[in-house]
Order: sequence, then structure tokens, then C-alpha cells
Amino acid sequence: MSRQLHLNLFLMSRGHHEGAWRHPGSNHKALTDLDLYVEAAHIAEAAKFDAVFLADTLAAGNSSGLASSGSLEPIVLLALLAAHTEKIGLIGTASTTYSLPYTLARQFATLDHLSKGRAGWNIVTSWAPEAGANYGLQQNLDHSDRYKLAEEFVEAVNALWKSFPSEAVVDDRDAGKYLDLSRIRPANYQGQHCRTKGPLNVPGSPQGRPVYIQAGQSDSGRAFAARWAEAIFTAHMTIDSAKSFYSDVKNRAVAYGRRPEDIVVLPGISAAIGSTQREAEQVWEELDALTSTEVGLTRLKARFGGHDFSQVPLDRPLTKEDFPDPNAVEASKSRVIGYVEMSLREKLTLRQLLRKLAGARGHVAVAGTPEEIADIIEEWFLSGAADGFNVMPPIINSQLSLFADEVVPILRKRGLFRTDYEGDTLRSHFGLGAVRADPTFAQSA
Amino acid sequence: MSRQLHLNLFLMSRGHHEGAWRHPGSNHKALTDLDLYVEAAHIAEAAKFDAVFLADTLAAGNSSGLASSGSLEPIVLLALLAAHTEKIGLIGTASTTYSLPYTLARQFATLDHLSKGRAGWNIVTSWAPEAGANYGLQQNLDHSDRYKLAEEFVEAVNALWKSFPSEAVVDDRDAGKYLDLSRIRPANYQGQHCRTKGPLNVPGSPQGRPVYIQAGQSDSGRAFAARWAEAIFTAHMTIDSAKSFYSDVKNRAVAYGRRPEDIVVLPGISAAIGSTQREAEQVWEELDALTSTEVGLTRLKARFGGHDFSQVPLDRPLTKEDFPDPNAVEASKSRVIGYVEMSLREKLTLRQLLRKLAGARGHVAVAGTPEEIADIIEEWFLSGAADGFNVMPPIINSQLSLFADEVVPILRKRGLFRTDYEGDTLRSHFGLGAVRADPTFAQSA
Repeated sequence: MSRQLHLNLFLMSRGHHEGAWRHPGSNHKALTDLDLYVEAAHIAEAAKFDAVFLADTLAAGNSSGLASSGSLEPIVLLALLAAHTEKIGLIGTASTTYSLPYTLARQFATLDHLSKGRAGWNIVTSWAPEAGANYGLQQNLDHSDRYKLAEEFVEAVNALWKSFPSEAVVDDRDAGKYLDLSRIRPANYQGQHCRTKGPLNVPGSPQGRPVYIQAGQSDSGRAFAARWAEAIFTAHMTIDSAKSFYSDVKNRAVAYGRRPEDIVVLPGISAAIGSTQREAEQVWEELDALTSTEVGLTRLKARFGGHDFSQVPLDRPLTKEDFPDPNAVEASKSRVIGYVEMSLREKLTLRQLLRKLAGARGHVAVAGTPEEIADIIEEWFLSGAADGFNVMPPIINSQLSLFADEVVPILRKRGLFRTDYEGDTLRSHFGLGAVRADPTFAQSA
Repeated sequence: MSRQLHLNLFLMSRGHHEGAWRHPGSNHKALTDLDLYVEAAHIAEAAKFDAVFLADTLAAGNSSGLASSGSLEPIVLLALLAAHTEKIGLIGTASTTYSLPYTLARQFATLDHLSKGRAGWNIVTSWAPEAGANYGLQQNLDHSDRYKLAEEFVEAVNALWKSFPSEAVVDDRDAGKYLDLSRIRPANYQGQHCRTKGPLNVPGSPQGRPVYIQAGQSDSGRAFAARWAEAIFTAHMTIDSAKSFYSDVKNRAVAYGRRPEDIVVLPGISAAIGSTQREAEQVWEELDALTSTEVGLTRLKARFGGHDFSQVPLDRPLTKEDFPDPNAVEASKSRVIGYVEMSLREKLTLRQLLRKLAGARGHVAVAGTPEEIADIIEEWFLSGAADGFNVMPPIINSQLSLFADEVVPILRKRGLFRTDYEGDTLRSHFGLGAVRADPTFAQSA
């Protein structure tokens, strides 16, 4: 079969646009109501998406107009979604900075068992100072220490997931032998930041372990992804930027002894879909009218490491001096550099920059008919910019339904996307092989 | 309405007896198969039990004959059970020694939201050295430090659960105001062991917070329970021991400014049910024949803090010298003292002690007809020994079904147990009032 596209639903409350929660087309159920998430997951599963994905933050927002300020914990929410779905993959975000390896290993192994092999772990190295304070830390780790900790953390949980293979459960009732103890061994992981003895007390799960997903774009982030990631979520506003990222991480993976197809690269795409180009653009306009400058400035400040933009006039083109030094920004540095470059290149005012970020947050944002959206997806897919997309509907459910009902059938007609699931696990949806005896792990041991 | 009995299902793999996993009457689905747990939860919910309860351990067992060596993580399993049930409470064990307060607060708040108010937290202060090694600690906290940490931990998560009340979510789409920020405040908890700034990023859940359950029997454990617990799981082998515990913790609660009915006391009961006394006793005999001395000795060693019994003859009455000094045992000390006293009083051999522990693990174990079991329950309930029971069926599902189908109807006929749920939350099933402005919390602040 020819190379197939992968589609992932970025499931974010009432939609990916900052104004979506107020839009008449969004699902107005409470953000703490399971049905909000189940309904979207059902649309994605009926369209045979590879997975739903839940992002996460470890601190409350501080703007009254920000519907995403309160967020349910992803692992628990995914567990309920597992019960309400059959085939779709379930990807949850969890931080290597603010988690306990033994607990994380057990929770994902349990999710993988109970979903029959559909769990994915989006590995993040959290950075917000607010998160540090919530976890009782006096000061945050810097960028490089966070990645060192992340390497150790993944090595530790990886060792735990190998410590109690499923074959050790023999469950021989006649002989009175439940376990073959000879197949169980401690993990004995001793890093500088992480230590765990093991073995894990949950046997190997259907996928062996969850699929590893990662989203870092910095040099350390790419090195980490090249070693560990099986899927990468990435943010690009142009196809050229996406192509350059795509070839870079595939080359880096090869340098780790992996095959290019061992990593599925999924840029985000936020598409406003209409029956005409004009109707699609109107969706963005309606959403923009529902955002507030206050919320935009609160978010911009957070993105730029606490830099205060409140003295910058809203309606004159931005200058280099309006921004902080991007190198002083601790997180998502490459995205921040992209925002500065775009602002200067396109002579954006602050108001215009806020609107761009309200919609797609650094991902490509497009408006068009279903054919036009399918064209863009096909172009990125065939030209080495993407193996698929992290679909970020600006409005959930209305724009998600349009994507599922109008765009997906066109992609199918072009032979790019599955008509049904061929396997049962996320690993199989992503076209990944079985978990191998891990050469990159051995390298580090 | 008269005082009502509470029944809780201790949901433990294939049954509470060590030999249950091999018994023809147990559910032979894999211990990692969701259906094993869903089927038992459905039986309990159909019988209108208050809750299902999942215990937990943070280390793998080390005996090949021990089916409980691998255990799914309780919070994730409960989340799936929430999706498969409607009314029954969902109680999960989580440790104050090996959890992160912010994460635990989010996970239980999420479970409480998505189950519509059915979450309960069984607060344990873990002690096994193996758990410490899995969590990377060089040495374990001693008993008294564990309780100090537990107090701080609960104060911290309690403060987080109050930091973002549900009323702060106004979700006013017309005005563009999602939150009333004036109702949100940081937790700012600063203890010696625990610190968290907050606010939590999950709004107040249907019950405000999960119901607090606790099981400590030591002096520190009882003091902790008197302050915090809304339900207590407790282990007694005689009604006299249960009565003395019951009046002690109720008196202690009163000393904290609480009412006796603010704590529901639930001893464990393991009942083998048959149509005749002989048939019931045969169930224990069948189960005993399925246990092994090896497994029993492994467990006994763990209970007695690592003391080695392998040199003690199996078939002569035990003497005081066969046991270690119970005061040197770090955990469940009162239970350990009870085992020693019982062994000497009843002149048990080691083999007989192993059999007693294989069945009920320090809880009362009985055999009888449904009428006889109902009599015992009624006697304990009416004489000040229990507000209900943590039901530990020796075999799941067969003995659970007998309890549900044969014993529960008798309890109903006697006016002791509900015929249907009257409310929707665990708090309501347990007959607890709303979460009050917490005087015991204020005392400590």
C-alpha cells in the first residue's frame, strides 16, 4: 500500500481558537463535562483519525477571558475516553520535570492495558515558573538541565516498562504458578536526577509501552526527539520551515541508527472550512471578533517569558525593540524567534500579531473550501514537509465535523487516507513496527 | 429513616483469598482485562453497594504463586470503571509518601468531575522499603515522619481543592467572561515537607473534593483518621476489638469538633456463603487447598517487617520466640500484635496461621448460610462495632454474587440496607453532609 497520511485530533475544549468558547458553533457543554470530549472523540473516530491528543499545563491561567484556564488532568480524561471509544489512539501529555517515573510508568501501562494498546505519551519538559511553584520548587531547572532530566526520566520509565514483560504472567492455575519469576528483573536505574529499582508492578502492556510523542523544536528538543520520539508534533507557519524541520529530524534519527519512517512528523494545522473561500475567511473574522486584547496580551506575555507588552501601541507596526531578546526566553525559543521574524517581515501591528496567535498559536492557519484544504494537506504530505497533521479545528465540534465530513472523503478519494482502521493499536495506526530491542537505549546504558 | 448500613466492595482481582485466582469459581479473565473489574462492579452496583474500593501497592511481589503481584494503577482503572457505571462510588488508594500533591489533586478532581461526584481517596502512608527504592529514595521515612508528611500532604491538597471553587467558572459567552478571577485564590501552602502555590487548574468538582477514607490503626493513624477521615476501613478479627476501635475513633473525632456520624467505620468481612454451614466451610477448605506454603511464608515475612519464618516447623504450636518483637515492626503494628496474640491464644501452628491469613488477612472471616452472615452483619452494626462493612468476597465473582443475591435481600427485609440509591454522589451514599468550612483545617493553619 502506498504511504498513508496520519491525522490526529488536537482535542482542546471548544476549539483551538481563543474565541471558540464563545462562538455559536462550538460545543457549549461545560469544560468539565465528559460529553464535550466524548462527542469530539466520536467524530474523530468515525473519520478514522489515528488518535486524539490532549495537551496539558501545570498551572492555572490568569485571565478572566481564558476558557482554557482550567484543564482536566489528561491521563484520567483519556481513561474515560478509552471506555467510550474502540480504536482511536489516546495520546496524553505528561511532564518529565513534574512527574514520578514509577507512577507515570504504571499509569500509562494501565491505560495501555485497559485501552487494548492505544496509549501514547506526549513527553514534555515543562518550563513555566508557575508550574515550578505549584510543585514546590524554589527555582526552575534551566533548559539544558530539563533535557538532561528528561533523558534520564525516559531511560528510567523505559527500563521499568521492560522489567516485567507480559510473558512473565503464566497464570497456570493447575500448577499454582502465576508468574515466571525468571523473566522479571529489576530496572536498577541510577541516574543523576532519577533513580528507580523496579521491577514495575504492572506487566508489559499490549504495545509493550506507550508510543512516544514529542514536540521540542530547539536543538536539544530535536536531539531528544531523534533518539526517542515515534511521532513529533511540530509548529510551522510555512511549508519551507516545515520541510527543513522534517528533513533535519529524519536525518538526526538516522544518525541514531533508526529508519526515517520510525518517526512520524505531524505539523499542526488549523483550518477554517467553508463552502466558499469567503465563507471560510468569515469564520476567522467571527472568531477574531470574539477575542479580547486583554487575553491576547496575557498569553503573549507568557509566551515571551514574562515580557510586558502593555506599553506597546496596538496599531503601529512592531519593531525589534518591542520584543525581548528571544535568546533570553526559556521555552519554545524557536517559535518565539519565528513570531519576531514574522512580525518584522510582515510589518504586523501588535493587534495583528495577537490575532494571528489567537487562531493557530504558531501553527499554519488556513481558510478555504474542503478541496483547497485537501490540496494544502496533500502538498505538505507529498513534498517532504509532513507525514500527516495534528488537526486543530478552530471550533469544536462544527469545524471538526466539516473536516471529518468534507475534507477526509477527498483525502480518501486521492488514496491518501485510510477508509478503515487496519489494526487495533496506536502503534499500528501510525505504521510503526513493534518496539524493538532498543538500540538507542543500549547506547546510553 | 433509620440508620442505614454501608457496603463497600473491596475489589481485588479474583477474590480476597490467596487461593482464589486458581479456584474454578473465580473470574479467570486476565488481571489486566478491564472486564474482570467491570463485571464485579456491575454486580456491586446492581446490589446498590456504596462503593467499589481499590487497594494498591507500590512494588511488585516476589512469589511466583502470588496473583496479586501485578496490579493496575487504581486511579486509571477507576476512571474506566466510572465510564462503565452510573451511581456506585469509586474509591482509590494513593500514597501521601509517594505522590505529588498538585498531580494527585488534579487527578482526583478530574475523576470526581467525570464520574459526577463519585470519587473517594483512600489516604495511605506507604511504608514498604521496596516502594522507597522504586521511588528513588535512599532510606524510608519512619512511622512518625510518614504521618507528619501525611498531615501536610492532605493540608496541601485540601488547600488546592479550595483554591478554584466551581462558582469561579461563570462561562458568560456574551460578556466574554469565562472566569470570575476574584473567587480564585492561591493555596500558598508552605509546610516542612510539602509546598504548593496554586491555585489548582481544575475547578471545584461535584463533591468539592473526593471523600477522605483512611485505614490506619496505630495511635498516629487513629489521630489522623479522627481529624480527616470520612470513612475508615479497619481490620478486626473479633467483635470486641471492633467495638473498642469504633468507640475510640468516634470519641477522637468528637474531640476534633466533629460529630460521630461524620465518620463511617467499615471493618472488613470475608464471608464464605453456602446453602448450609458445611457447604460454606467447604469453600474455605477448597481455597486453602489452593494456597501454597511458599506464598504464605513470603507474605508472612513481608507482614512481619522482613522476619524470616523459614526455620520454624510448620506443624508445632507457635511460641513467642518464633516471632520478632512486634514493636520493631514498622507498619500495621496493631495488626501484627493481633496475629501474635491470636497464635499464642489459639495455639496455632505456623501452617494454621498461614491459612488464617490467606483468607482474611486480619479481617473477620466467617462461613455460613446467607441468614447467618446477615445475622453477623446485623449484630456488628447494631452493637456499636460497625457502620457497615468493607465486603471482601473470598472468590470473585461467585462469592460476591452470593452475597449480592442472597445476603443483601435479607438485610433489606430487616430494614438495614437501601433498596435503591437515594443520591448520586459517594458523599450522599455514605450519608455524609456537604464538605464544611473545615474546622480541623483551620485549627492547623
